[in-house]
Amino acid sequence: MESLMIYMPIAMAALGLIYMLIKKSWVLKQDAGDGRMKEISDYIYEGSLAFLNAEYRLLSIFVVVVSILLAIVSFVVPTTHWLIVVAFIFGAVFSAYAGNIGMKIATKTNVRTTQAARTSLPNALKVSFGGGTVMGLGVAGLAVLGLTSFFIFFFWYFMGAEWSSEMIMVNGKLESQGNFDMIIVLETLAGFSLGAECIALFARVGGGIYTKAADVGADLVGKVEAGIPEDDPRNPATIADNVGDNVGDVAGMGADLFGSYVATVLAAMVLGNYVIKDMGGAITDAFGGIGPILLPMSIAGVGIIISVIGTMLVKITNNDAKETQVMGALNLGNWVSIALVAISCYVLVIWMLPETMKMSFFGEGLQDISSMRVFYATLVGLFVGAMISSITEFYTGLGKKPVLKIVQQSSTGAGTNIIAGLATGMISTFPSVLLFAGAIWASYAFAGFYGVALAASAMMATTGMQLAIDAFGPIADNAGGIAEMSEQDPIVRERTDILDAVGNTTAATGKGFAIASAALTSLALFAAYVTFTGIDGINIFKAPVLAMLFVGGMVPVVFSALAMNAVGKAAMQMVEEVRRQFREIPGIMEGTAKPEYDKCVAISTEASLREMILPGLLTIGFPLLIAFVPMIFGMNNLAIAEMLGGYMAGVTVSGVLWAIFQNNAGGAWDNAKKSFEAGVLINGEMTFKGSEAHKAAVTGDTVGDPFKDTSGPSMNILIKLTCLIGLVIAPILGGHTIAATVTSTQFIETTNGVTDAIEIEMVSVDTENAKAIVTTTFTDNGNVMKEESVLEGTLGEVKAAVAKLQAEHKK
Amino acid sequence: MESLMIYMPIAMAALGLIYMLIKKSWVLKQDAGDGRMKEISDYIYEGSLAFLNAEYRLLSIFVVVVSILLAIVSFVVPTTHWLIVVAFIFGAVFSAYAGNIGMKIATKTNVRTTQAARTSLPNALKVSFGGGTVMGLGVAGLAVLGLTSFFIFFFWYFMGAEWSSEMIMVNGKLESQGNFDMIIVLETLAGFSLGAECIALFARVGGGIYTKAADVGADLVGKVEAGIPEDDPRNPATIADNVGDNVGDVAGMGADLFGSYVATVLAAMVLGNYVIKDMGGAITDAFGGIGPILLPMSIAGVGIIISVIGTMLVKITNNDAKETQVMGALNLGNWVSIALVAISCYVLVIWMLPETMKMSFFGEGLQDISSMRVFYATLVGLFVGAMISSITEFYTGLGKKPVLKIVQQSSTGAGTNIIAGLATGMISTFPSVLLFAGAIWASYAFAGFYGVALAASAMMATTGMQLAIDAFGPIADNAGGIAEMSEQDPIVRERTDILDAVGNTTAATGKGFAIASAALTSLALFAAYVTFTGIDGINIFKAPVLAMLFVGGMVPVVFSALAMNAVGKAAMQMVEEVRRQFREIPGIMEGTAKPEYDKCVAISTEASLREMILPGLLTIGFPLLIAFVPMIFGMNNLAIAEMLGGYMAGVTVSGVLWAIFQNNAGGAWDNAKKSFEAGVLINGEMTFKGSEAHKAAVTGDTVGDPFKDTSGPSMNILIKLTCLIGLVIAPILGGHTIAATVTSTQFIETTNGVTDAIEIEMVSVDTENAKAIVTTTFTDNGNVMKEESVLEGTLGEVKAAVAKLQAEHKK
Repeated sequence: MESLMIYMPIAMAALGLIYMLIKKSWVLKQDAGDGRMKEISDYIYEGSLAFLNAEYRLLSIFVVVVSILLAIVSFVVPTTHWLIVVAFIFGAVFSAYAGNIGMKIATKTNVRTTQAARTSLPNALKVSFGGGTVMGLGVAGLAVLGLTSFFIFFFWYFMGAEWSSEMIMVNGKLESQGNFDMIIVLETLAGFSLGAECIALFARVGGGIYTKAADVGADLVGKVEAGIPEDDPRNPATIADNVGDNVGDVAGMGADLFGSYVATVLAAMVLGNYVIKDMGGAITDAFGGIGPILLPMSIAGVGIIISVIGTMLVKITNNDAKETQVMGALNLGNWVSIALVAISCYVLVIWMLPETMKMSFFGEGLQDISSMRVFYATLVGLFVGAMISSITEFYTGLGKKPVLKIVQQSSTGAGTNIIAGLATGMISTFPSVLLFAGAIWASYAFAGFYGVALAASAMMATTGMQLAIDAFGPIADNAGGIAEMSEQDPIVRERTDILDAVGNTTAATGKGFAIASAALTSLALFAAYVTFTGIDGINIFKAPVLAMLFVGGMVPVVFSALAMNAVGKAAMQMVEEVRRQFREIPGIMEGTAKPEYDKCVAISTEASLREMILPGLLTIGFPLLIAFVPMIFGMNNLAIAEMLGGYMAGVTVSGVLWAIFQNNAGGAWDNAKKSFEAGVLINGEMTFKGSEAHKAAVTGDTVGDPFKDTSGPSMNILIKLTCLIGLVIAPILGGHTIAATVTSTQFIETTNGVTDAIEIEMVSVDTENAKAIVTTTFTDNGNVMKEESVLEGTLGEVKAAVAKLQAEHKK
Repeated sequence: MESLMIYMPIAMAALGLIYMLIKKSWVLKQDAGDGRMKEISDYIYEGSLAFLNAEYRLLSIFVVVVSILLAIVSFVVPTTHWLIVVAFIFGAVFSAYAGNIGMKIATKTNVRTTQAARTSLPNALKVSFGGGTVMGLGVAGLAVLGLTSFFIFFFWYFMGAEWSSEMIMVNGKLESQGNFDMIIVLETLAGFSLGAECIALFARVGGGIYTKAADVGADLVGKVEAGIPEDDPRNPATIADNVGDNVGDVAGMGADLFGSYVATVLAAMVLGNYVIKDMGGAITDAFGGIGPILLPMSIAGVGIIISVIGTMLVKITNNDAKETQVMGALNLGNWVSIALVAISCYVLVIWMLPETMKMSFFGEGLQDISSMRVFYATLVGLFVGAMISSITEFYTGLGKKPVLKIVQQSSTGAGTNIIAGLATGMISTFPSVLLFAGAIWASYAFAGFYGVALAASAMMATTGMQLAIDAFGPIADNAGGIAEMSEQDPIVRERTDILDAVGNTTAATGKGFAIASAALTSLALFAAYVTFTGIDGINIFKAPVLAMLFVGGMVPVVFSALAMNAVGKAAMQMVEEVRRQFREIPGIMEGTAKPEYDKCVAISTEASLREMILPGLLTIGFPLLIAFVPMIFGMNNLAIAEMLGGYMAGVTVSGVLWAIFQNNAGGAWDNAKKSFEAGVLINGEMTFKGSEAHKAAVTGDTVGDPFKDTSGPSMNILIKLTCLIGLVIAPILGGHTIAATVTSTQFIETTNGVTDAIEIEMVSVDTENAKAIVTTTFTDNGNVMKEESVLEGTLGEVKAAVAKLQAEHKK
């Protein structure tokens, strides 16, 4: 059974995807409502498709360009294999396809939720959460399926699916052939992760610009100038606004977590390989000697089934339920899945890892680490995932102290409201960063960087469930919009509003989860980067490294500003278009003429894709510049690797801070504004919507919108993508791949008592043109003789020949 | 002459202070105007004294507490000398006294400037800039006087004013006695710097809270609620507002630069000692073998005289001059002093340094560095100082593109104005950080960390001039206020307005200079810290170090939030007090009753000092926690030192970013608002004060006020103080002070051909209870005999005895 474990994650992913398909067909079978509802829903669906198609066009160009670049790299650098291009393309396609599934089901589920809300609240929850489940399992299933399939393929291709414990010399250090080959496998696999994260850049950043441009545009002209309510069908930008909810919150979040999921597992596998190296280059276990590498994959696989169970638990029966009950149902599913992950981690860790491992700690040398300590590290990850949600909830939740304070400060105008909101976001970094720092420290103390990566893996195991909860929010939001636009009975809107309110809370906590996952993923990638390049560490007392730490710290700040400006520009275009339609199309306001929804959709689509080019270039360009410009000037590769590491650390630290700051400030402003809907007590007076204080709060929310939906969440992508690019560049910088130094020596005592020796030196490990020199020393009539022969061919052939020679001499 | 160089800086400082006194008596001799003017000026003067007195009370308590802590440390840690307490107290007193001079002269000069403005603009500039000059030279003179006097004293006390090139063993490494003793000298001298920076914390942060609480309070009730103009004498908070300008902009900025000046020179001296170490522990030069250590002091000393020359050049003759001419006069003085510093650096560097030095570069070993390269490093510093002002000017200047964009975005409301301002501040980190990163890299490439520290020293050499330019602004601002309050002829206000407008620009560029100085100072301190602790570097691939990098990055963000909240709280109190006075004192609005100015002054004073306790604790507490908590748990000292280094790097990188972001966003908002005074073209329409767009811009300015005057500038103090605390803790963590390993061995060939040896092992270098064991090996009748004797006493006595023994044996 153990030897089949490598296939387990694929099986689990397949099961999850089958369940997803069943759920999908169930959702699609639900009643899609009557004419008007269907019509609006179709507009949203078509708008989404328009965005997706435009995005795919741009993406295709991008993927082709990057593929060519990667192909060139793999051609120039002997140890970067061309299969990385294939992995990259598949990573991009899988991620895009997962987003496609999510967007489509979300835009199909919204109208069905409205229709279900006409019958009862439990039904509405069932349908909307069903849609979320399809999204969640689609993303998680495809991520695990893609990653593990490629791993198995590369494991066969590069290693013949066998771990070789033979020791070879790499850069003057002994290393097992298995470790060496596994690095090639994982380096190539990094292409898959890079592909997925590139799509996330487009989906998260482009989506964030899209959704806010449409939102701000619709509000500024519709609500403020024309005085018509939100989601009014007379507003030309209203469809774009609803499409935006799906583009940003569904597809963007999905691609973000898809990327985190894949990158975390990959990084944990890299560090698992390092554990085996620390244990002497080979271990004996029932899993073909790769238990520590299989473990993160297995946790991810089991996580999918747990997510399925979690989603099944989310249901309510009472038609008169309020927010609390709905939230309770979601929480039940969430907590049960976290508990199940904890139990599975215990079982898997104890079963799959050696009881005691050796791990090298910087400055402390090799230490004995029991498998129980690895389990504790996974608990740290689960704890962080749960805690970060509570922290986010505290700083952004309705009725909580920070939000109430912003409400109070609204009474003295927009200025004080803004200051209070900014301060809230800034203060919220305190517990969040202490939590992260504590988690890094603790998981490292338990089990080194392998522990850090497994903490991230455990946290990410419930990705399917988390995404289901996340995606359900925008679906409910859209359902409410459709109810409004199709002028339903107020009870329908009331029911969707309950779901929407819960959705707003889960959106905030979901963002917390996404940051935490991005932070831990980046750290794991960072650790993997250091092991890939073979540098001793990253010493910021070297001035160039320190300079790069500064530059890295600056990039998230500038990226955020670019994203915010992009929203501003796109929103202005939208405002002009809506004004034009109101002016030029007679009868819009009377409802006798239909607005040109598609023009607004097109503006948002084009603007979002155009405006993300500059931040995208910043993200991808800086690490490349840092790596290749000094190389042109002949700087030492290891020094460059250290500089790039400093840059990565700067981006990660600063990016995490700015993500927390912006997300929480934005969330707090949003809920401060919402507080006025039910009325708030300011200086002893009940104050409602329409008051001066409320207007100040609306200003705060305007500032918060791009913070929490565009620039804040895009930090996740920035930090992960930066670290991934570093990881992909690593083999070029790292010394371990310099092929000519691979040497293997073996001495054999022959029967006649004379020392007979065979020495094999691998002078090239290029996959297509490998070469080994075999020197045999023997005695002939008392004379010591030397004979030299050369083995040439593909890497596989040369290795086979070497193995045969060695086997012969062992006899 | 060369041997007297050590006294040169003191002489220069004394000259500068004498010139300052002459200038001061000249300013005070000017006409202080008539009754009403004098009365208002007296209110401001008394308000300032009230703040200073309250501040001094709190400071005394603080200084006593820290002194006791330091005394305990010096008692427990054998190699931390109790003189550090004395140095600390003097540092605090000198800095506070410098602030006192500045505040007093500024509050005396304001009314004299108003009076001078009644005659002509050139006179008004002469008087106001005269006041600024007193401030600038007072700060620079006292800084150099204090630091160099203590250095000479400690050099005599610990080293007998002689460099000993005798080699001793420290932690198993050979080191010269001179290097070892000089570290003790400089560690003790760090107390002076710490004292100065602690005062800066109070002056800059407390002052920042004071000035904005008074400003916001005065504006919210006076301008907005009561509808009376700014600086109207009927407003009870108006005196507090004018006091605030002096407290924040004069005393705060002065203490900030005093601290930077001292810390930079100190750090450069520490690194100079390191250069001597790299050159084999001793060099032969005309400066008693300490040329590289004296150089930064000498640059600072010459800088004072250059500043005197620079201030003399600032004058205009044309009574109809406009902002451009006034700015031109200031620029002339500034550029000439920068050019003179460059020339002096060339002369001093070539004269005082060995033609070729050896410096060790991490990972590259010892390298030959010519003194010309050190000169290039100083040019890098001067370049940074000049460039950062231009960058700041571009992002915050009236009529520049970024400010115009904010003006445009004001037309769609406060929300878009805020987003544009935030984005401007964020984007401005791009060129600024690239400049810093480039400067770090370049000055390090030229001459290692010694080069980085000398770049900072060269930049800081013009501190006197910079401060004169900076302090002149608030004086002119106050003069305008007095003209308004005493109802002068409009021409007077017009003239002071010209000076005020120039002052606003210099305030922005001055902030740029202050950040740049803080950034370079912190880097130099950071480098000094690493050499003090004797760690190999700071490796962020160790998880605890990485965790501390995160925590360090978070602290500036939280500090900023605390400072902003403090302004909010204090302003609210002020609002209530002003409202109360309007309500309870009849006749205020009619001008028949006098408002209780002192109550408002008291509120600002108390609030500012109370509210800075929490950020102060955060600044001082975190490094102490990081150092001592793990120590209690028995963690390795060097590991702790590395963690603390990670924390310092995190604070510095994040602090610099947040300083630039907040200062420039605040400056840009301010000038966007000011743009409306002359009218701006928005969408083809001229828009003025009072328009909706202007209201939006006012909201932006409200947010920007605490950004640019409270939280932004306080980042400077945060990063410097953090690094200084690290430096003071360093001897406790560092391995170099473990006394028992100090060993000296010397073998002497005697006349009879038998090897006779004397071996001296210092087992304790405690200043009061030193101990050495002397083992003499000799031959008696062919038998090798050993004799052991013990030397005990004060460190001086033991060293003298050892020297005597060695001398005897050398005969």
